[in-house]
Amino acid sequence: MRVLAIDPGYGRCGMAILDRKNGKDILIYSNCVETSAHNAFPERLAHVASECAILIKKFAPDNVAVEKLYFSANKKTAMLVSEVRGALLNTAQSQGIPTFEYSPSEIKSATASSGNADKAQIAKMLHALIKIEKEIEHDDEYDAIAVGVTHLARHRSEKPRR
Amino acid sequence: MRVLAIDPGYGRCGMAILDRKNGKDILIYSNCVETSAHNAFPERLAHVASECAILIKKFAPDNVAVEKLYFSANKKTAMLVSEVRGALLNTAQSQGIPTFEYSPSEIKSATASSGNADKAQIAKMLHALIKIEKEIEHDDEYDAIAVGVTHLARHRSEKPRR
Repeated sequence: MRVLAIDPGYGRCGMAILDRKNGKDILIYSNCVETSAHNAFPERLAHVASECAILIKKFAPDNVAVEKLYFSANKKTAMLVSEVRGALLNTAQSQGIPTFEYSPSEIKSATASSGNADKAQIAKMLHALIKIEKEIEHDDEYDAIAVGVTHLARHRSEKPRR
Repeated sequence: MRVLAIDPGYGRCGMAILDRKNGKDILIYSNCVETSAHNAFPERLAHVASECAILIKKFAPDNVAVEKLYFSANKKTAMLVSEVRGALLNTAQSQGIPTFEYSPSEIKSATASSGNADKAQIAKMLHALIKIEKEIEHDDEYDAIAVGVTHLARHRSEKPRR
């Protein structure tokens, strides 16, 4: 089972590829896609989606998992992030890759014992849950890895498709 | 100038192709894409986006214009429509087609004298503004045509790219 996990955003978007091999979860790749605020929103959206398409082509994931969004204080931001989510979901779906969505509380529950864990606690817990051999530079990468760990935990009993 | 104009939605999504030829606006095509509520949301999203991709391939529009969304009473609906918008914008952008967005009030202003015009008034006004030779079955088609008329009105002075 290989999953492309994404923490959606239009300024910074975390993406991670995780494998479950022989019962162990391994981080294969992670990155934080950054777009310039000088560009128009549709261009930033397309930049993020094209990086998703590149990773799908390069890593051939079985599934794509994306964090579900809830309303934040900033409604405009919430709607723009929703647009990015839509572009990402369609990028996967249009290539026949099943998509999965997880709420922030589902991700916190799957990656740390408490639903109220902070970023530092989640990062520490992730290092305990999954083999991470690369250096993680951005919080957004950890967020994406957490989405991926949540997905693999939910699909432990499933056989890989390849 | 040829524009693919879209009134975004995941249950019903109006799409229209409008041309400006010799200073006149003509409706070339319109349709209401309908998706089944029995399907998962990502599939409905992908269905709408794939219809957009088909129209881009078939009609080769110079621009894609999409209605901008504002918060409705139903926040969940607003976010799902935002996801559809994102998938549509990315479908156009990924093929190098410039995208444009118009607010409901901009569309109403461009298509009827009043910003408070109702659907019936807009339909009547559209028939006066643009040559419509086909039968329009759905309100969503009129909504898409209104987006297209708005776009053509804003780009009267521009030369067509082809």
